Amino acid sequence: MRFRLVLMAGVCLSAAFCSMPFVAQTGSDTRAAAPATEPAYEKNGDMKPPASYREWIYLTSGIDMSYSPKPDFADHSMFDNVFVNPEAYRTFVQTGTWPDKTVMVLEARMAQSKGSINQRGHFQGTDLMALEVHVKDTARFPDKWAFFEFDSLDKPGSLVPQGAPCYTCHAAHGAVDTTFVQFYPTLLPLAQQKKTLSQAYLAEEAKEKK
Amino acid sequence: MRFRLVLMAGVCLSAAFCSMPFVAQTGSDTRAAAPATEPAYEKNGDMKPPASYREWIYLTSGIDMSYSPKPDFADHSMFDNVFVNPEAYRTFVQTGTWPDKTVMVLEARMAQSKGSINQRGHFQGTDLMALEVHVKDTARFPDKWAFFEFDSLDKPGSLVPQGAPCYTCHAAHGAVDTTFVQFYPTLLPLAQQKKTLSQAYLAEEAKEKK
Repeated sequence: MRFRLVLMAGVCLSAAFCSMPFVAQTGSDTRAAAPATEPAYEKNGDMKPPASYREWIYLTSGIDMSYSPKPDFADHSMFDNVFVNPEAYRTFVQTGTWPDKTVMVLEARMAQSKGSINQRGHFQGTDLMALEVHVKDTARFPDKWAFFEFDSLDKPGSLVPQGAPCYTCHAAHGAVDTTFVQFYPTLLPLAQQKKTLSQAYLAEEAKEKK
Repeated sequence: MRFRLVLMAGVCLSAAFCSMPFVAQTGSDTRAAAPATEPAYEKNGDMKPPASYREWIYLTSGIDMSYSPKPDFADHSMFDNVFVNPEAYRTFVQTGTWPDKTVMVLEARMAQSKGSINQRGHFQGTDLMALEVHVKDTARFPDKWAFFEFDSLDKPGSLVPQGAPCYTCHAAHGAVDTTFVQFYPTLLPLAQQKKTLSQAYLAEEAKEKK
């Protein structure tokens, strides 16, 4: 089943990226081995799927995040989880910013409410509803970073064309190097300590406090 | 500031454990190094804090999960994130159940809504509001598993006495070996495949479907 999922009404998704479709999968995204985490591509420019991302470093989760005050979903709620490759994470911990070959993965999962003994709030369903990658590869992309959308974890992902809303939104509002570090609870204090927050973000925050 | 946080009205917490207090912290839970992940204890029986748990394997997040139909929090929402030590995760992927020395960590973070460019839904705040551990240590605990509550990541955690509601709830409802695998989206399908789901859980699910 191909699942058309509008993750975000307007611009870019919550903790990371853009909206995208996905082939719903059931639990096939857990791998025992942990292969290399550097980005790899097909000859046509597609990106190979980041098979082991669930074993990378977890950054955060959100639910129904939106940059529009209007609800995106009338009938359901959606979690998004963000992961980064361990090598990039370790550099961030040391420097407060991202090295070349950083790969950030955003997955979306349906939020369920009633299930087993749970009566309220939301937990995450087994079906993976969307997967996107934000990758820094300075030799490959003119603006250093690129977005890829995946229809499945078994197929290469397609490059989102430069100029798409996710690029402009991340460039304008990302707290560190076009990424939404303001939503990553363990990384934001590091960026504050190391003074790597972008001027655009600092200006927005100062305006917000006035 | 000591933050008294009632995570759950009744029994045990959402994806894992019991309710507990916590000294609110700001972003001090990100470590660059990844020390050994085996459980370690003080002479008095307290557990040493699992310092590097944010670099372990992420299992899931929930928000405001409750086993009671009544709201737990009138004025705020709370995320909980669950991590497990990588060694135990790899065994689970192979066998569908937990080995000795499994350490599961649940952290709670306040859910924020307005912040930066976010207008709706919820993202996770930088302050860590609660931390609990569920550990399997067969030589140490008569029932194999124990719960520990931590007031801070800098201090040892206290053993929750056997017989407390979290033990009975996990024993009665945990899908695999007293753990809430039914709420871990990448592990539930593995347990189904490997037929390691508990009889109690399977009976509950069969009853639910009637």
